[in-house]
Amino acid sequence: MSLIVQKYGGTSVGSVERIEAVAKKVGSFKAQGDDVVVVVSAMSGETNRLVELAQSMDAQPDSRELDVLLSTGEQTTIALLAMALKKRGVPARSFTGGQVHILTDSAHNKARIVDIDKKRVSEALAAGEVVVVAGFQGVDEQGNITTLGRGGSDTTAVALAAALEADECQIYTDVDGVYTTDPRVEPKARRLDRITFEEMMEMASLGSKVLQIRAVEFAGKYNVPLRVLSSFEDGQGTLISFEEEGMEQVRISGIAFNRDEAKLTVLGVPDHPGVAYQILGPIGDANVEVDMIIQNVGADDTTDFTFTVHRNDYQRAQTILKKVAKELGAREVIGDDKIVKISLVGVGMRSHAGIASKMFELLAKEAINIRMISTSEIKVSVVVDEKYLELGVRALHSGFDLEQPVEISQ
Amino acid sequence: MSLIVQKYGGTSVGSVERIEAVAKKVGSFKAQGDDVVVVVSAMSGETNRLVELAQSMDAQPDSRELDVLLSTGEQTTIALLAMALKKRGVPARSFTGGQVHILTDSAHNKARIVDIDKKRVSEALAAGEVVVVAGFQGVDEQGNITTLGRGGSDTTAVALAAALEADECQIYTDVDGVYTTDPRVEPKARRLDRITFEEMMEMASLGSKVLQIRAVEFAGKYNVPLRVLSSFEDGQGTLISFEEEGMEQVRISGIAFNRDEAKLTVLGVPDHPGVAYQILGPIGDANVEVDMIIQNVGADDTTDFTFTVHRNDYQRAQTILKKVAKELGAREVIGDDKIVKISLVGVGMRSHAGIASKMFELLAKEAINIRMISTSEIKVSVVVDEKYLELGVRALHSGFDLEQPVEISQ
Repeated sequence: MSLIVQKYGGTSVGSVERIEAVAKKVGSFKAQGDDVVVVVSAMSGETNRLVELAQSMDAQPDSRELDVLLSTGEQTTIALLAMALKKRGVPARSFTGGQVHILTDSAHNKARIVDIDKKRVSEALAAGEVVVVAGFQGVDEQGNITTLGRGGSDTTAVALAAALEADECQIYTDVDGVYTTDPRVEPKARRLDRITFEEMMEMASLGSKVLQIRAVEFAGKYNVPLRVLSSFEDGQGTLISFEEEGMEQVRISGIAFNRDEAKLTVLGVPDHPGVAYQILGPIGDANVEVDMIIQNVGADDTTDFTFTVHRNDYQRAQTILKKVAKELGAREVIGDDKIVKISLVGVGMRSHAGIASKMFELLAKEAINIRMISTSEIKVSVVVDEKYLELGVRALHSGFDLEQPVEISQ
Repeated sequence: MSLIVQKYGGTSVGSVERIEAVAKKVGSFKAQGDDVVVVVSAMSGETNRLVELAQSMDAQPDSRELDVLLSTGEQTTIALLAMALKKRGVPARSFTGGQVHILTDSAHNKARIVDIDKKRVSEALAAGEVVVVAGFQGVDEQGNITTLGRGGSDTTAVALAAALEADECQIYTDVDGVYTTDPRVEPKARRLDRITFEEMMEMASLGSKVLQIRAVEFAGKYNVPLRVLSSFEDGQGTLISFEEEGMEQVRISGIAFNRDEAKLTVLGVPDHPGVAYQILGPIGDANVEVDMIIQNVGADDTTDFTFTVHRNDYQRAQTILKKVAKELGAREVIGDDKIVKISLVGVGMRSHAGIASKMFELLAKEAINIRMISTSEIKVSVVVDEKYLELGVRALHSGFDLEQPVEISQ
């Protein structure tokens, strides 16, 4: 008998029929003797509907009241799922975030979970009930309703699994696991049986939108085994856990990419201490998030400074940068919003410089010009022209033999 | 400076535009220095939508979970109204039933308010905020969400007014007050400036759907002055309060009627003790509500037993009754679902038998056959054929001079 926390996203609970399918699945776990806590999102489309309703009242709706409104989305789903379970004869009980005391800070619309009082959940489980919890929401110390921001239901599930010391946290979604890369770009992409938390975080932050990055972080921190699997098909999905003995060899898990990048370069910046801050300070003040940053020291006393931003922020960042460049006495601001980032992700990469050079070689063979390079412990990212995305991803996928399952024991 | 509790029903908050109009009205009270607590219903149509959603999951949805679902309706409205107030620069804060600790019993779908902790409301008022509370909902001792049943928002408003010792509880609706009878039936019907709690209860229970009867009861019990007025037009509405000195004379307040009645008669029931219970017990067990009950002792050892039920329950009650009649050895079951009830309501009536006889005389003049009669301290009700409804109401309205304002001081 295990204690399992399951999370079903908006698509999985998008209609009465789909909620009934979830109830059937939950019931089958219960029937085989498991204790089950189910975390659900709002039915697909519902959160957008509520946001539009709020914006029809006020283009900038009050953040506290927006949370009161948005939290009704998940509350609707928990009621319907509990009804569906009871109709099937499965004892069940729904709880809002407030009812299970998911305590958060007071940062409305993007609150962070501070604590969970597991008493009520444990009581209901002890009474043999399936516990159905509204994801994405909590309450602050004053009892105000808060929400965790988009995708926060994953975080709710992981936090509950951590608090309850669950055996596994299962995230049901519309894909059947984590892939070596996006199958729409590389049809030979293969589902991974396992991946480490670190790798998953790189995959998630680089645009593999299977899991919310905060949830992965949380699961890693509290060592909650996390499994991504399909709501609609049977299968084992992908287990996300810590590195194991047999995983110590060089291993490339997958290829992530991000289409939404744009790059900006300030050329001929007088090179003196503090210049990076002078350039990036105003960008940060304007709430533009910066991804990769590269600085080359030039031949004279100037330097070239390049960074990437989300494509939506490109125009805004450029305007700010032109003003800053003038103040700094820099020569010119150039930019390109027709670029993409491709990243090779895998543990063990840190000790193998050969991985990076093989990556560059594979791209060179396809005549793909690399515009920027950035590396971390478990990834190598390159920025290339947008038009090379598919070609680059496929070249790397095949060059690193990702269509073949990795032999864990060498 | 007064403390006013205002309640706006579903039609008054039926759209973003209407909620903005409510915010404007609330703001004008606040601007003239009043403290305001606003209780709101779900937007019109929303509760029906949620009930249908629940029923598409389960024809008999679990009552606890139905409350979790239904309570999202008012939660949506409080968020939108608080947003609208803040947009106008009026400080405001929304509260769910649980957040202001509207403590109820655990009778889901028809809970009763047990207690209100006024601390949070008082704190928000002291901070200069308009307090926006979700009507119709509360929590039980275990923290489960409960609802008060249809129209329960009126009760929430009155209970809050009682707990806060408000100067007035104003119920905003789509009519501008309480009328002597339904103006759609008698165009000469007149708005009453005042009416007593007792009269209002008879008017409400007899089908004048302006106020929920439990709210009137509650207001009477705690002596909360209640005012019914229009959300859409200016005006003083109708004040419901206790009888005053000048109101001691015979006074007919109005004529209520109910189209939804049906009557059933068991003929030739052997007359022995307990027969009424043997007939009505199974009806009550089937959750059929009985309104008027009349028993005539016949010439032989049998009796005829007649009662009225809601028209929707007519077929079901008849089926039960036929079975019961057979068991009792009664002669026959007959019935009629083309009847209506017309009632004359007014304080002071108890001491004036003349009122009833004048009523019967006015109906006789129009050749309206009276099928049943029932009287109470402040009303006389008659059952007549459906086709006589309009004729009967108009004859009584004019016969008792209801189009003329009553002279309070004789």
